[in-house]
Amino acid sequence: MIHIHHLRIGRSVFTVWLLEELGLDYEMTIYDRDRHMRAPPELKKAHPLGESPVIEDGALKLAESGAIAVYLIDTYDTDNRLAPPRDDVVARAVWTQWLHYSEGSAFAPLLIKLLLRGETQPALISAFADGEVSLHLGYMEDFLGDKPFLLGAQLQGPDFGATYIAHMAQRLGLLQSYPRLSAYVKRNTERAAFKRAMERTGG
Amino acid sequence: MIHIHHLRIGRSVFTVWLLEELGLDYEMTIYDRDRHMRAPPELKKAHPLGESPVIEDGALKLAESGAIAVYLIDTYDTDNRLAPPRDDVVARAVWTQWLHYSEGSAFAPLLIKLLLRGETQPALISAFADGEVSLHLGYMEDFLGDKPFLLGAQLQGPDFGATYIAHMAQRLGLLQSYPRLSAYVKRNTERAAFKRAMERTGG
Repeated sequence: MIHIHHLRIGRSVFTVWLLEELGLDYEMTIYDRDRHMRAPPELKKAHPLGESPVIEDGALKLAESGAIAVYLIDTYDTDNRLAPPRDDVVARAVWTQWLHYSEGSAFAPLLIKLLLRGETQPALISAFADGEVSLHLGYMEDFLGDKPFLLGAQLQGPDFGATYIAHMAQRLGLLQSYPRLSAYVKRNTERAAFKRAMERTGG
Repeated sequence: MIHIHHLRIGRSVFTVWLLEELGLDYEMTIYDRDRHMRAPPELKKAHPLGESPVIEDGALKLAESGAIAVYLIDTYDTDNRLAPPRDDVVARAVWTQWLHYSEGSAFAPLLIKLLLRGETQPALISAFADGEVSLHLGYMEDFLGDKPFLLGAQLQGPDFGATYIAHMAQRLGLLQSYPRLSAYVKRNTERAAFKRAMERTGG
């Protein structure tokens, strides 16, 4: 059975959501952050970086939520609900681009905003983060357009990371001017599978 | 023929290096940063985010260096020099994890260090970046061990992003205590294909 090391508050619940969408059996070890919002040292036993999510599936231990999504979908999404078939090279490349996008481009400026809350704002990094956050949220808003999900009518692999990004922006109070992204977060977090993930992880 | 939109100074040259390792024909549009190190507005014609690298291959236009690497390797690395075969599920999952690692985990703290140079260091973000940079460089140093490349004796897909990360750390003066990563940067940037990439892009 798949085992997931889950750290409360953060991106890991979006991987639990993927497990739920795939209808997989899994067990969890749940970790809580300390009062400084840091991961507890016990998580280092699961992975030397002390990061989450980490999954174990048989002899395989895997970190990086994007790589976990690729592995789980390639292995268990046998009817291609969450990804185009591998031999559709162009569709799969676009799918992979959006899977990388959340963590490769959109995450860093939001992380900077999070870490600068309540601090004196140094000019360069502050201007960078504001500019990049507007750029990325605007790009996602435009790309989403009138589609319910990032790549069309169906939930796909990249939606898990993109929902994490949009949800993080919402928590930081940055989503007011983005009605489509706001509706997207609402739509995805109201799915039965997301609610099950929240229940099993304790929110 | 593949077309790459290349922005000087930054990660894009590591994608040109991949094109060279694959022995592919390609043409380039080269962009220079302005005096504030920002990408020029012309790059927005290639991609709405104005980011680089972006490749075009026939009708496909693709951003995100990790996704570009997956596409190029899946399409053109037909003898599996740079990736394990797709049906070796475990090896491929670990390969994908390391491909995501550079951008998903290691990049953000280095970007913060870059953006905070010469500024008053706000306590929270500064402590975060210092801690994360040490964690990630130490992790990469340990994982590299005595192997010449990240995943063993041969250069593989994840080495392109990892070399970018280590090279960026070196430029920020953060690599002194990491002899294996320092040797790794030297080893990779001395490869004939990397040198050709530097020559064609003008360094």
